[in-house]
Amino acid sequence: MKKVFIAGFTGAMGQKAVQLVMEDPAYQLVGVLAPGASNPDPQVYHLAPTTKVYNQLAQVDIKADIWLDFTVPQAVFANTQFALQQHMHPVVGTSGLQTEQIKTLQELAQQQGIGGIIVPNFGLSAVLLMKFAQEAAQYFPDAEIIELHHADKQDAPSGTAISTAQLIAEQRQSPKPASPLHETLPHVRGGDYQGIKIHSVRLPGYVAHEEVLFGGPGEALTIRQDSFDRQSFMKGVKLALDQVMDLTELVVGLEKIL
Amino acid sequence: MKKVFIAGFTGAMGQKAVQLVMEDPAYQLVGVLAPGASNPDPQVYHLAPTTKVYNQLAQVDIKADIWLDFTVPQAVFANTQFALQQHMHPVVGTSGLQTEQIKTLQELAQQQGIGGIIVPNFGLSAVLLMKFAQEAAQYFPDAEIIELHHADKQDAPSGTAISTAQLIAEQRQSPKPASPLHETLPHVRGGDYQGIKIHSVRLPGYVAHEEVLFGGPGEALTIRQDSFDRQSFMKGVKLALDQVMDLTELVVGLEKIL
Amino acid sequence: MKKVFIAGFTGAMGQKAVQLVMEDPAYQLVGVLAPGASNPDPQVYHLAPTTKVYNQLAQVDIKADIWLDFTVPQAVFANTQFALQQHMHPVVGTSGLQTEQIKTLQELAQQQGIGGIIVPNFGLSAVLLMKFAQEAAQYFPDAEIIELHHADKQDAPSGTAISTAQLIAEQRQSPKPASPLHETLPHVRGGDYQGIKIHSVRLPGYVAHEEVLFGGPGEALTIRQDSFDRQSFMKGVKLALDQVMDLTELVVGLEKIL
Amino acid sequence: MKKVFIAGFTGAMGQKAVQLVMEDPAYQLVGVLAPGASNPDPQVYHLAPTTKVYNQLAQVDIKADIWLDFTVPQAVFANTQFALQQHMHPVVGTSGLQTEQIKTLQELAQQQGIGGIIVPNFGLSAVLLMKFAQEAAQYFPDAEIIELHHADKQDAPSGTAISTAQLIAEQRQSPKPASPLHETLPHVRGGDYQGIKIHSVRLPGYVAHEEVLFGGPGEALTIRQDSFDRQSFMKGVKLALDQVMDLTELVVGLEKIL
Repeated sequence: MKKVFIAGFTGAMGQKAVQLVMEDPAYQLVGVLAPGASNPDPQVYHLAPTTKVYNQLAQVDIKADIWLDFTVPQAVFANTQFALQQHMHPVVGTSGLQTEQIKTLQELAQQQGIGGIIVPNFGLSAVLLMKFAQEAAQYFPDAEIIELHHADKQDAPSGTAISTAQLIAEQRQSPKPASPLHETLPHVRGGDYQGIKIHSVRLPGYVAHEEVLFGGPGEALTIRQDSFDRQSFMKGVKLALDQVMDLTELVVGLEKIL
Repeated sequence: MKKVFIAGFTGAMGQKAVQLVMEDPAYQLVGVLAPGASNPDPQVYHLAPTTKVYNQLAQVDIKADIWLDFTVPQAVFANTQFALQQHMHPVVGTSGLQTEQIKTLQELAQQQGIGGIIVPNFGLSAVLLMKFAQEAAQYFPDAEIIELHHADKQDAPSGTAISTAQLIAEQRQSPKPASPLHETLPHVRGGDYQGIKIHSVRLPGYVAHEEVLFGGPGEALTIRQDSFDRQSFMKGVKLALDQVMDLTELVVGLEKIL
Repeated sequence: MKKVFIAGFTGAMGQKAVQLVMEDPAYQLVGVLAPGASNPDPQVYHLAPTTKVYNQLAQVDIKADIWLDFTVPQAVFANTQFALQQHMHPVVGTSGLQTEQIKTLQELAQQQGIGGIIVPNFGLSAVLLMKFAQEAAQYFPDAEIIELHHADKQDAPSGTAISTAQLIAEQRQSPKPASPLHETLPHVRGGDYQGIKIHSVRLPGYVAHEEVLFGGPGEALTIRQDSFDRQSFMKGVKLALDQVMDLTELVVGLEKIL
Repeated sequence: MKKVFIAGFTGAMGQKAVQLVMEDPAYQLVGVLAPGASNPDPQVYHLAPTTKVYNQLAQVDIKADIWLDFTVPQAVFANTQFALQQHMHPVVGTSGLQTEQIKTLQELAQQQGIGGIIVPNFGLSAVLLMKFAQEAAQYFPDAEIIELHHADKQDAPSGTAISTAQLIAEQRQSPKPASPLHETLPHVRGGDYQGIKIHSVRLPGYVAHEEVLFGGPGEALTIRQDSFDRQSFMKGVKLALDQVMDLTELVVGLEKIL
């Protein structure tokens, strides 16, 4: 039975993770951390009596096999550093780590001889979409991306769309020069990421969806993923928990363990 | 049996129209016109012996019930004027008529007491898509358009996409102010037509396709049309031929006779 | 301000309807009914103090302009009968009324000189899909239906798919004989409703979706609707509430008031 | 410059292959074979003067590096046997080889120490779809297939759909028992291939398309390919020509060289 510690256990993702770990006999939830968890009684939070509750990182005095992090950009770096120093394998689901910080953490992981995983996207359908898109780009250099989200999403494009474009751009042997095209309505061709056009749709009702369209002479290949519900992320969380202890370095991206 | 005259009979659309009219027992092809048709022998062009061949408008000395025009922007105004003056019902498939010219022709049609139809798009799937989109906009004011064409199409967006956006915009009671949105990649939200976003995809392999996406709380409605082949236009041409003699004015758009 | 009575106010749909009516200043919730509502205090159910709570139909002693019914197949007939007798315009969202029962209720409505509406599907996207499909069938007699639902849905096809096929079948002038086709895997061509093939997909993750595919020479037209969330039905409920008092007979289907 | 021999050069695929080989400076078309090619003059067939024309296999007296076969089921076995015996690497695009025949040819290839490839489908989008579907099935055991073809296709399902289902079935660790489901319209759930449902759509206008739908808790992954034009196969033919000389055995399926 692997021991798991969950940082950020009171948030939406944290709560789903608590439920996942408590219901899976392969895991034991030994401790949780959240700044607002002022009551040390685990039963207040519907946890097992043996689970220890912390509200400050500095107070954490137990060890676990895995540190699962669903906190905030301000806390994630210190948390992951702490986990690595304590020889807990980090599974980081929190966003906001800078490139520089990731490098520092990877060096620390190497020094400590411990592996872990930073996961920008736990959605298996999105991760597979990116993997397949990268592979298809070898044979279909012409690609465009359409991502569709609910109208409340205030930024565009989505992080997944940018990551997908990066993977396609890396794979294409010789990016083709864009053909000259006359836009009679400005911007109608969308955003341009190294020659790959990205189109962001924002409509009420939609949840989170992405399509990658490839075209070649006489044929087309389309890969689409739909995230209807945050529940979908738990499949990826379980995959990370199951495999993180086999990792020997700190990797980025769920696709690294597919 | 209705008598048909085809102007521009040697072009791609003209040739398909010749075939349609010759194969349909409800019609008789009495004459054709094309500047390059220097040989007056109809059999050179695989026409019936009774079909008269002209290479100048000024020489046309026969009458028909219907004047079907698949010529060029430079010729279409004079042709249609001639048809109306000769009491032939025009079916105009040629693009390029200016708003002013259309008005002049409509006045002439009224004076002559004859109906006709100008058809920017003979594709029934595209025409129905526009009709349905206009209707749906009453109930779903939030809409975006994605049009997808082959990589050789040098302009964007397509005329159909603009027409669709116009119809939606007319229908919406109160266009909603766009929500503030942060574009981390410029232009990723596409072109803006009165608050309706249009996205143009250009990829090899694709032919001509359009999607209208509507979203509302908890649901979405999508209307899509695919044109795989120019053959598809002939269904619309036949519909126009069948109904043009019942028209009492010069209308614009195949949807007027649906 | 129109007075509304809600029968079946404790169920999932009933609760959403309560919220809708209470938040809309055009309506006043005067009474509610549910067999389990044993406590007559409206505040127990987060209702206004003036709303009367009943747990038996026989006890209802107030009048309203509109009777909104989200009960069960066993109760809906008696409820609607009662509403009509009391001159309340029924909006019936409960399923299970038999053809015979609907006829009886329509006759009663006529005797009482009052209109109402029975609504098998409040989803506007589904209702528009059916409307457009019926219209498109005039021009595209070749159609197939794909409906996709979550894996827990235990019956197939969906009621909406059958209704859509009925509407298409009614519209087609001459149903074409199916071409002979060799199935090397039995049943792969799906279910057959008067020559219209229906395909039911059942997969986890999916919610409730339907596609109608039309094909003609060289082109295709597709209409798709996605229901992501029961929230979507409230738009249709509001439409029915807004218009039911203008109806002069008891009609079936939200499309009747579009 | 690699020497290529094309058997079946007068058919639709053969003609496209001739064009491909003649236009590519990496290849030289040294000979062609077709039963109807009674005139030995290559220029009659718009070939280079040095290309030798045969109308019987027994007369072929030249060697090439690659034997490209687009003939008929009756001829393909003898042709491929001949190519292997003459140390020409076969690229077989002809369908109809039996399992037993393939085994015999593979043994012969091994004896001769020469590689080759039998390609049931040259469409890269279809081949990638199958590859990705097989991979996705590891993570999404729940899958259904929809294949859509023009109304003239007289059999169902398509060979590609069956192949895709086979690949998915092999990959799934434990096929789940189908949940009990009540079909109110017979066969609406489609064909069943080892628990994977296949749905065949046949509509005019459509060309050749396939969708694989995967569903999991809260998410969906869809892979779609569209073949608009036979032109698309040439990309796969070129890939096979480029790589066949590196093969050391006789393999089946373009995916083997992706």
